[in-house]
Amino acid sequence: MHKLKNTDTKPPQETDKEACKLKTGELQEQLREKQKILYAQGEYSILVILQGLDASGKDGVLNDVFSGLNLLGVQVAAFKAPTEEESRHDFLWRIHQKVPGKGIIGIFNRSHYEDVLVPRVEKWIDDKTIKKRFKHINDFESLLIENNTVILKFYLHVSAEEQKERLTERMENRTKFWKHNDNDWQVATKRDIYLDAYEDIFEHCSKAADWHIVPADKNWYKNHIIAKATLKALEQLPLKYPDLK
Amino acid sequence: MHKLKNTDTKPPQETDKEACKLKTGELQEQLREKQKILYAQGEYSILVILQGLDASGKDGVLNDVFSGLNLLGVQVAAFKAPTEEESRHDFLWRIHQKVPGKGIIGIFNRSHYEDVLVPRVEKWIDDKTIKKRFKHINDFESLLIENNTVILKFYLHVSAEEQKERLTERMENRTKFWKHNDNDWQVATKRDIYLDAYEDIFEHCSKAADWHIVPADKNWYKNHIIAKATLKALEQLPLKYPDLK
Repeated sequence: MHKLKNTDTKPPQETDKEACKLKTGELQEQLREKQKILYAQGEYSILVILQGLDASGKDGVLNDVFSGLNLLGVQVAAFKAPTEEESRHDFLWRIHQKVPGKGIIGIFNRSHYEDVLVPRVEKWIDDKTIKKRFKHINDFESLLIENNTVILKFYLHVSAEEQKERLTERMENRTKFWKHNDNDWQVATKRDIYLDAYEDIFEHCSKAADWHIVPADKNWYKNHIIAKATLKALEQLPLKYPDLK
Repeated sequence: MHKLKNTDTKPPQETDKEACKLKTGELQEQLREKQKILYAQGEYSILVILQGLDASGKDGVLNDVFSGLNLLGVQVAAFKAPTEEESRHDFLWRIHQKVPGKGIIGIFNRSHYEDVLVPRVEKWIDDKTIKKRFKHINDFESLLIENNTVILKFYLHVSAEEQKERLTERMENRTKFWKHNDNDWQVATKRDIYLDAYEDIFEHCSKAADWHIVPADKNWYKNHIIAKATLKALEQLPLKYPDLK
């Protein structure tokens, strides 16, 4: 079991920032090359799931890690509070619609894991329902994996201090006003309860695909880890350009 | 285990056709009343799944049993051979999108069960994959049921003789030409293999919701059975008009 409270949110001390950024650039170059083949072959797909507390840097990953990809083969979905129509269906309904087809890299900014976080912390649903949802999530992810989807789940782990600094910046920097939400501050006070809920997720929903806990206090390090893990996943696939038909 | 080959495709001999049709009309009247409440309440949904060999009368059910319902609260989906986009996703992807939201009666003309029939009979997928699909179907149906959906699965059981007669009519009656498909005749020659595949489905995919085997040689009897089962399902729900808010 993960102990998030004792898990680093910062890069290892010896990490050289500039060298790391340079390396990330190289990884992104290789990502682009692999993506071309993934798309051309059309047999496998990648699903990147980004989770983390408010201001943990999920949006940034899209810009900093994946923005260089060929947009034809990328599909981003951000999941906010469910719409009325979405609420009339099971919690996986809106998620399933957005999974990437073969050849595509799909990126989820938040995901079905929100449905075992917020409603749990707010006590809208009971533990029995949570357990059932865990099982449905595992079944659902197995279905995708059996259909040639590689699922990469990233938890962006940010410290209370760094989170507070970022939330404050959203109230002080004009270009970030739009991200400010009073509710984020309230959620931040429930940090420990959220971390407990996350640890329970890591324990029960790693069967189909494992979680990557990403130290996220430094964006350059977070980006590096995610680029590296994604490239590794692509390298492990038997990708090749199709023959001439 | 069902033994379809020894199961009646005709109504019980004593059944009076005219009395039965009259009764069906009454059931439909009650269906309409119950549907009003289902829709107004918006807490439960009904999913009717129609399966059966070609010319077993699936389209007819839509017209004859459900056509009187308030269209605001009905949603029909017909599943034919998957499109290219659908083929790029897992077999439940297109199905999940079309499940009824709360308050709605959804009717599937063919369904995810086609994905454990045609590919199996044609040997496009192996037995191991079939078994996995059975499990995914059960998990998927459980997800819907836990979300207040009542699933009614009808297998329309038609005799070889009646099927042949109907397929022939499609080549002789101008208003039915559009339904003619040479391939249906070829499929009809594989009747026994399809019945075996169906029996396997009944055995493995009745966990979440049971199958109704409907004698379908006579449309008036088939319609009666389906109207009755659907009404019964509605009657078992704690339906009530919402209070004034």
